[in-house]
Amino acid sequence: MNNELISDIGEKELIKILLDKRDKRLKSDDYILKSSYHDDAALVLNNSKYTVMSTDMLLQHSHFPVKMTAYQMGAKCVTANVSDILAMNSVPDSILISMGLPPNMTLEEYDDLTDGILDKCDEYEIKLIGGDINESDEIILCGTSVGVADENVKLQRGVCTGDLIAVTGKLGTPAAGFDLLNSDNASENYYDIINTLLYPTLPLEEAKILRKYPLLTTSITDITDGLAVELGHLHDKNENLGFEIDYDKIPYDEAIKDVALKFNKKLSDYLLHFGEEFELLLTFNEEEYLKHEKELSSFSIIGKANDSGKITLIADNTVKNIPVKGYEHLKD
Amino acid sequence: MNNELISDIGEKELIKILLDKRDKRLKSDDYILKSSYHDDAALVLNNSKYTVMSTDMLLQHSHFPVKMTAYQMGAKCVTANVSDILAMNSVPDSILISMGLPPNMTLEEYDDLTDGILDKCDEYEIKLIGGDINESDEIILCGTSVGVADENVKLQRGVCTGDLIAVTGKLGTPAAGFDLLNSDNASENYYDIINTLLYPTLPLEEAKILRKYPLLTTSITDITDGLAVELGHLHDKNENLGFEIDYDKIPYDEAIKDVALKFNKKLSDYLLHFGEEFELLLTFNEEEYLKHEKELSSFSIIGKANDSGKITLIADNTVKNIPVKGYEHLKD
Repeated sequence: MNNELISDIGEKELIKILLDKRDKRLKSDDYILKSSYHDDAALVLNNSKYTVMSTDMLLQHSHFPVKMTAYQMGAKCVTANVSDILAMNSVPDSILISMGLPPNMTLEEYDDLTDGILDKCDEYEIKLIGGDINESDEIILCGTSVGVADENVKLQRGVCTGDLIAVTGKLGTPAAGFDLLNSDNASENYYDIINTLLYPTLPLEEAKILRKYPLLTTSITDITDGLAVELGHLHDKNENLGFEIDYDKIPYDEAIKDVALKFNKKLSDYLLHFGEEFELLLTFNEEEYLKHEKELSSFSIIGKANDSGKITLIADNTVKNIPVKGYEHLKD
Repeated sequence: MNNELISDIGEKELIKILLDKRDKRLKSDDYILKSSYHDDAALVLNNSKYTVMSTDMLLQHSHFPVKMTAYQMGAKCVTANVSDILAMNSVPDSILISMGLPPNMTLEEYDDLTDGILDKCDEYEIKLIGGDINESDEIILCGTSVGVADENVKLQRGVCTGDLIAVTGKLGTPAAGFDLLNSDNASENYYDIINTLLYPTLPLEEAKILRKYPLLTTSITDITDGLAVELGHLHDKNENLGFEIDYDKIPYDEAIKDVALKFNKKLSDYLLHFGEEFELLLTFNEEEYLKHEKELSSFSIIGKANDSGKITLIADNTVKNIPVKGYEHLKD
């Protein structure tokens, strides 16, 4: 099947290939077997208080770096969509993916793309329950992720003065990866950095801890457009509050300092204004945080909510306002 | 705002415009107010046994005829997606829509597009609960529709020998509309025919009747790829059965006979092999049908399921096999 094109076989057969692969991975699961991708719609059994849903469209020219493989594209679509479910303090359950595919895509690439999707579904313990395939000029992957939640679902508007501001993981690595990938000297030394951009993962373990302590978090969101923009969004929903961020506490991988130097970039641009991290930005009730501090070592406290009404950054012993800039579609 | 381009104002402001319009139409509704489009994901309260979900991506070059307005595109996206919910015997509840929009779209067109979406949401009594906006070369609208269902949800595999085969509405009109629209002599006389293609609607009343009598229908699907293809799909899921269709019983608008003549087309191609009708194809238990026949006058009985294993068409007193052909992406 190596050089065969997807346009040689058409939509129906492509769907069948994907479903056959999916079904091979299925453990016995009553309702998903009943609600095949082949039917008009998928069924999700309502065994929780809320169903949580989010949609995210990824287009090749803006979301997939030129050197990204079809496998990585499929994986990124799942990651980007499931990220929003974690950001609601909810348990990921399933995903629907509509695709636009160019007719000259090979069957081998299609196979890689669908493996990327299904491998990430396995990793996140979710099921692919629906989709659609169309012809388009570039690869378009539009996901809708589904999660289940109870009363402890977290919206972005629960922040209180005195709450601690925290993030998971390390920031800025995908930004450094982007510069490395676009340069000619992307050596193998930088493989790990570049990989955070090409094959992002989600803070699943941290999300589990958050769900364990419903009183701990007062808001959660994911960092896809850069820390500064996400703080801005959070501020929009909690207008009377202020956020003071201690720049020195923002976690990053030392190796990206060199990358920034190499490309004449400011480290702060990597940390604040690029995004694509798929890490979580959260606010913690301080008292609850102190109760569970030991278990929360994989979260970095980077600041505190106050009543200033402004987002400020303390760096080099001076206080600056953070410009709320980051990537915006149809503008940048 | 007339000639302003959407790229002058960017994704965030475009989302705000849409949400402001949506919120103005909202009656007080606890959970939707909590689960704003602005948050990471939308919340749907689980007050039924199942949540039903389907996704459908519409791309300008293949799903939107050249003369279709932005308003009609928005409306068609909602209709195509909600159609799959009706086809599950489920009650439409909400929709998420991710968009790819060209930067040179005017704000006025964007306003029309979003009005088309929101007007159809009102008509179908559903809520727009999520979405995403990106830049793309052509207009891409990817919807995910959500419905609620109980045990009476209908999959496509419940057909039995002896069941009646029925359709809602009239078939073939969008096919005639397509030829008229693409010709230069699309006069105003043909407005209604063309309109079924540009501004399709759903058989909401018929769907309500079906939900009233759970024992009546043994399967439902929607006719988007043409009656022949849909019968083929139904056959795939009920392989031991056969379907015998009486050609003379397929309902159509007399006016499309002239259109077929005008364009040297066979009427049967309009009725069997074009699609885009968004009508329902169903199978009825005959006994139950006879009980409620009076109330079912808006359904046309076009054939019967048998045990022949084949799909056949009786026309001019001869029995033919129906070729299972219709539109297929990445093939036609």
